[in-house]
Amino acid sequence: MPGEFEFLDWVRKQQRPSQFVPIPAGDDMAVVNWPPGELLLVGVDQVLDGVHFDSALHDPRDIGRKVMNRNLSDCAAMACLPAADVATVALKRGSPLSYSKELYLGLRDAADVYDCPIIGGDTAAWDDRLLVTVTILGRTAGLRPILRKGAQPGNGIYVTGPLGGSILGRHMTFTPRVNEGRKLAESGVVTAMIDISDALSRDLRHLCQQGGVGAIIHAATVPIHADAIQLSKQTHWDPLDHALHDGEDHELLFTTLRTPPLGIQIGTITQDPAVLLQVNGQTLPLAPKGWEHRL
Amino acid sequence: MPGEFEFLDWVRKQQRPSQFVPIPAGDDMAVVNWPPGELLLVGVDQVLDGVHFDSALHDPRDIGRKVMNRNLSDCAAMACLPAADVATVALKRGSPLSYSKELYLGLRDAADVYDCPIIGGDTAAWDDRLLVTVTILGRTAGLRPILRKGAQPGNGIYVTGPLGGSILGRHMTFTPRVNEGRKLAESGVVTAMIDISDALSRDLRHLCQQGGVGAIIHAATVPIHADAIQLSKQTHWDPLDHALHDGEDHELLFTTLRTPPLGIQIGTITQDPAVLLQVNGQTLPLAPKGWEHRL
Repeated sequence: MPGEFEFLDWVRKQQRPSQFVPIPAGDDMAVVNWPPGELLLVGVDQVLDGVHFDSALHDPRDIGRKVMNRNLSDCAAMACLPAADVATVALKRGSPLSYSKELYLGLRDAADVYDCPIIGGDTAAWDDRLLVTVTILGRTAGLRPILRKGAQPGNGIYVTGPLGGSILGRHMTFTPRVNEGRKLAESGVVTAMIDISDALSRDLRHLCQQGGVGAIIHAATVPIHADAIQLSKQTHWDPLDHALHDGEDHELLFTTLRTPPLGIQIGTITQDPAVLLQVNGQTLPLAPKGWEHRL
Repeated sequence: MPGEFEFLDWVRKQQRPSQFVPIPAGDDMAVVNWPPGELLLVGVDQVLDGVHFDSALHDPRDIGRKVMNRNLSDCAAMACLPAADVATVALKRGSPLSYSKELYLGLRDAADVYDCPIIGGDTAAWDDRLLVTVTILGRTAGLRPILRKGAQPGNGIYVTGPLGGSILGRHMTFTPRVNEGRKLAESGVVTAMIDISDALSRDLRHLCQQGGVGAIIHAATVPIHADAIQLSKQTHWDPLDHALHDGEDHELLFTTLRTPPLGIQIGTITQDPAVLLQVNGQTLPLAPKGWEHRL
């Protein structure tokens, strides 16, 4: 939404300390002291017809899968294990029962991969379009959550896979990097992590702002997805621009002290807070383009 | 929604056992073993423009308060303490930032009464109407949750306050009975509990079905709210019918072994599974009318 980030900044300033919340809001999931001395993670994500999917094009099973996978991707970004979730559905009035069931089964298909039961929910019908929301609980299971905050000058910047052009279909079918997130946390070398939902350029900015650092990205090392090349034939953009600025890749973006067990290095964290792109021998500002949530 | 209850029955049958979920879905909140040996409660509720409120009539602060209070009322029904929550908002595109802020402050007004911080969330804008969802976490804090299941033949049936006519305005401004729920659980005499969100006739049916029991309600003892009398002048219904069948009172409905510390007795649980109403010397079936979520 226009002004979304301004609103979120304002919300963060409204928050007061709580015995339950050791880490300020603004990460991929909230972190709760539950019980004291241990941690519970809570994430929530709403997915809207006409914004994140198109119910005229996408079938309900795929929509359900996408909603759950977005939440699982938040777990990946925090390096936690999905434990349980609750789901709500606002259905267009008159939708047949079979439609609700397919939506539910899509949610389940995705959640079952991680033995993450749907433990509750709420359904209603209205005259407007479909909206599905999942709230997910994550458990640390022996590994500290990895936050957006924590990147240090000199850290390598990595991604788990090729980027760009997800709008051609991958935004409905991506695999959340839960296992990769766990492996990275186990390695002990990761200092900060986020999943790429808005766009590399925008999510890198979030990570740098939280760490009080900057970054330099080497364009030649950014892995470009075949979809970005395909899409560039329609848009006449450079495929690199799709890799940098398209949303909903849901690969992990992370920074490390040393070589990590997986991932592709695309740059280095800097002390100077500028976020830069080195391309064809030039060094330019990497503007945070990309989504504020539109299809 | 039409078929909502059929859908929910189907969903319940899809559920498989999980190490985290000791109690089957279908209560006011989900109950999670977290950590093993303790309990975490999770509730979720979505509130839709044109269904649960009317954004042309109700201001965003009141809408925010209502959404949070519905979730707090679920905590009341489980006799748990609200601990933390996450909120999502789907805003009509072009809504000013001040509108989002007022919504947030409404959520906060209600949550602050119980020191229940908003720890995360998600916002988006679309071309459809406003929808707000809250997921709430509850903590048992030394008291076992009271479930819908548990009513036994001979138990008294009680409500915490007068019923009916909430549509005249009380559905936006009700007080969740969190403190009452805790006092009832502390007394040790309550066998089952639910909050009246759909209607007394419908929510009593839920409670009886879960317990495998029936009920007889004495019409003369049902406390009728002044709003039910006021509304009956417009509808030409009997005020009793409003008390029995109107939704969104958010009083607690509960059954007890002995006299509880608070509440008004309205009937008795029976072994026979019929749900009956004794009125003017006659005994009639009490049909489960009331909401399937419409304004």
